[in-house]
Amino acid sequence: MSDETLVPGRRARVTVPVRIVGAGLLGSSIGHALRQNGVDVSLADTSPAQLRLAVDYGAGRAAAEGDDPALVVVCTPPDVVADMVEAELKRFPNAVVTDVASVKLEPLRALRGRGIDLTNYVGSHPMAGRERGGAISARADLFAGRPWVICRDGETPTQALALVEDLALDLEAVPMEMTPEEHDRSVALVSHVPQVVASLLAARFVDAPEHALALAGQGVRDTTRIAHSAPELWVQILAANAEPVTQQLDLLAADLSLVADALRDPDRQGSRRTAADAIRAGNVGVERLPGKHGQRRRFETFVVMVDDVSGQLGRLFGDLGELNVNVEDLRLEHSPGAPLGLAEISVDPATLQPAVDGLTSRGWRIAGTSD
Amino acid sequence: MSDETLVPGRRARVTVPVRIVGAGLLGSSIGHALRQNGVDVSLADTSPAQLRLAVDYGAGRAAAEGDDPALVVVCTPPDVVADMVEAELKRFPNAVVTDVASVKLEPLRALRGRGIDLTNYVGSHPMAGRERGGAISARADLFAGRPWVICRDGETPTQALALVEDLALDLEAVPMEMTPEEHDRSVALVSHVPQVVASLLAARFVDAPEHALALAGQGVRDTTRIAHSAPELWVQILAANAEPVTQQLDLLAADLSLVADALRDPDRQGSRRTAADAIRAGNVGVERLPGKHGQRRRFETFVVMVDDVSGQLGRLFGDLGELNVNVEDLRLEHSPGAPLGLAEISVDPATLQPAVDGLTSRGWRIAGTSD
Repeated sequence: MSDETLVPGRRARVTVPVRIVGAGLLGSSIGHALRQNGVDVSLADTSPAQLRLAVDYGAGRAAAEGDDPALVVVCTPPDVVADMVEAELKRFPNAVVTDVASVKLEPLRALRGRGIDLTNYVGSHPMAGRERGGAISARADLFAGRPWVICRDGETPTQALALVEDLALDLEAVPMEMTPEEHDRSVALVSHVPQVVASLLAARFVDAPEHALALAGQGVRDTTRIAHSAPELWVQILAANAEPVTQQLDLLAADLSLVADALRDPDRQGSRRTAADAIRAGNVGVERLPGKHGQRRRFETFVVMVDDVSGQLGRLFGDLGELNVNVEDLRLEHSPGAPLGLAEISVDPATLQPAVDGLTSRGWRIAGTSD
Repeated sequence: MSDETLVPGRRARVTVPVRIVGAGLLGSSIGHALRQNGVDVSLADTSPAQLRLAVDYGAGRAAAEGDDPALVVVCTPPDVVADMVEAELKRFPNAVVTDVASVKLEPLRALRGRGIDLTNYVGSHPMAGRERGGAISARADLFAGRPWVICRDGETPTQALALVEDLALDLEAVPMEMTPEEHDRSVALVSHVPQVVASLLAARFVDAPEHALALAGQGVRDTTRIAHSAPELWVQILAANAEPVTQQLDLLAADLSLVADALRDPDRQGSRRTAADAIRAGNVGVERLPGKHGQRRRFETFVVMVDDVSGQLGRLFGDLGELNVNVEDLRLEHSPGAPLGLAEISVDPATLQPAVDGLTSRGWRIAGTSD
């Protein structure tokens, strides 16, 4: 993908009429992106209010009798995806029907159990979302840069698959082919189980004393950040992907018990090794997560002290810009009651020294580097 | 604390000679900060190489016969803290002795069991650290803005306590008084258990297929970030704080099993409620974590699309500076294979619209706001 695809006026791959069922966050976002490409987008939603909002915001027009979509995208909650896909396949037998649900096997099983011709159905799952939902939160760039899983089987016609891939590409997502089983086990591991774990860890804070929470640092804030997620949606996701999630939760509970048992008698032979093995395995595992551009992170980090007053960060950003420092990552940190903040800045190793020198010469206090 | 305390030349509270035992990251960092205040800092370390490095980097002078410190700070690994504190109390009976170990009850119990006069001992724990250790990673500002727990009991003389508090304040930390039991239970909850959980979660990725890891997003990256921590140190911490950690791990394993059991039969009555309750309790718990300045976050967020080319972020920072936007938080995100990045920027609600308008008029693509 070249830079040219990123500017308005790029060539659209999908030019056929598209029908979107469910005009919430995902459906409306897809609508906005396709509308920008001049595509005829018709929207349907069981909620007239949601539909009106999506239309008002420009995600498409309300669906009408006589619509003849070539592509239908079902963007409803997981619980009703199978029903919706079935209805759309029957109503538009010439259209390719896809969905964006975050589980793929259960809807497929349900559809297969109904004896429907699934030739034109291609399940998919864009790995995108926001903390707030609804048509009002939709944005054309929601999928930009995110993986978009597309599930095929032996019977999926090439052109149906290509149409869904084109949709993903037009939305600037990164298409990835997977079987439904591979997809569901994968998201159980990297999304659903982390959600349960973060939620349960944060649930321990409900009755915790204030003085304990006052010691919370960036570590635990990161570990529990996704505990903010919405219960309604997650119950559907977890229930629909129950088997792979349960498998992983059982393994994790067993691992937790192993460490707890070791720590019950920390001076017994082998106890410390059990604890060390757990931390060490975590070191290996976390290194396997893709960082930016799918590569491991190879950045150097330095920390700039920032007085917590208006304009200070702006000045830092301005100085970084003038110094032509290509910031790979930036993290701001404050502590309770602290009069200043720390800006942790990651840069290419080659630019570490010039960046530190340049900022120092402009009067910034550098608190440390990763060297 | 006023801004004046942040500039060099501020009035030092601690002016007496200070001896630091253990010239690693924490000890050397304390040394650097005190040296900046003109304090006589003597350093001791069992490793001559580490000591030489710390002295070379300016953390203090090597300890010598005839030293007469008024304050001793023991900065050794948790396993040897009690031995070191005992030795220092005996060698310098007129000095206040503190330590910075991340567990407080076990060293105190060990010391009490030896029948030593502990009047001059004040345990403490600065909530600071870095991923890399050693004198070479030390920095004077390591403790700036971080909580520094100070443990007193009924026998602690006021002036001993005040001296350790002055040390924390001179290092720009935020002193907090707690009992050793309160401290250990608190750090088990907000630090030690999250570490174990993040490590075990990341350990599940050791044998995971590449295609699963390719779907990892910011959520799981945050949840497992601290899994990078060093096994050697953490085994000592976990073993020394075994009882509170084990209690919390048992509770968490039980919670995990509860959710796993519910998902084993997701359509049984009550199953979905169990899952929803877990996510909902996580919502409540995570909201209790202090954010910036100990307050809940009340920021609005918008996302700027950033082409992943050198200079783009610098230009964004420059524009933000010129627009006088006070950025409260900033998070950069890239996906594997994505040609662009997303910069999520949090600002005061009042400045959201001017910021979005200003950036848009300068040609930036705003991907969305939290409204």
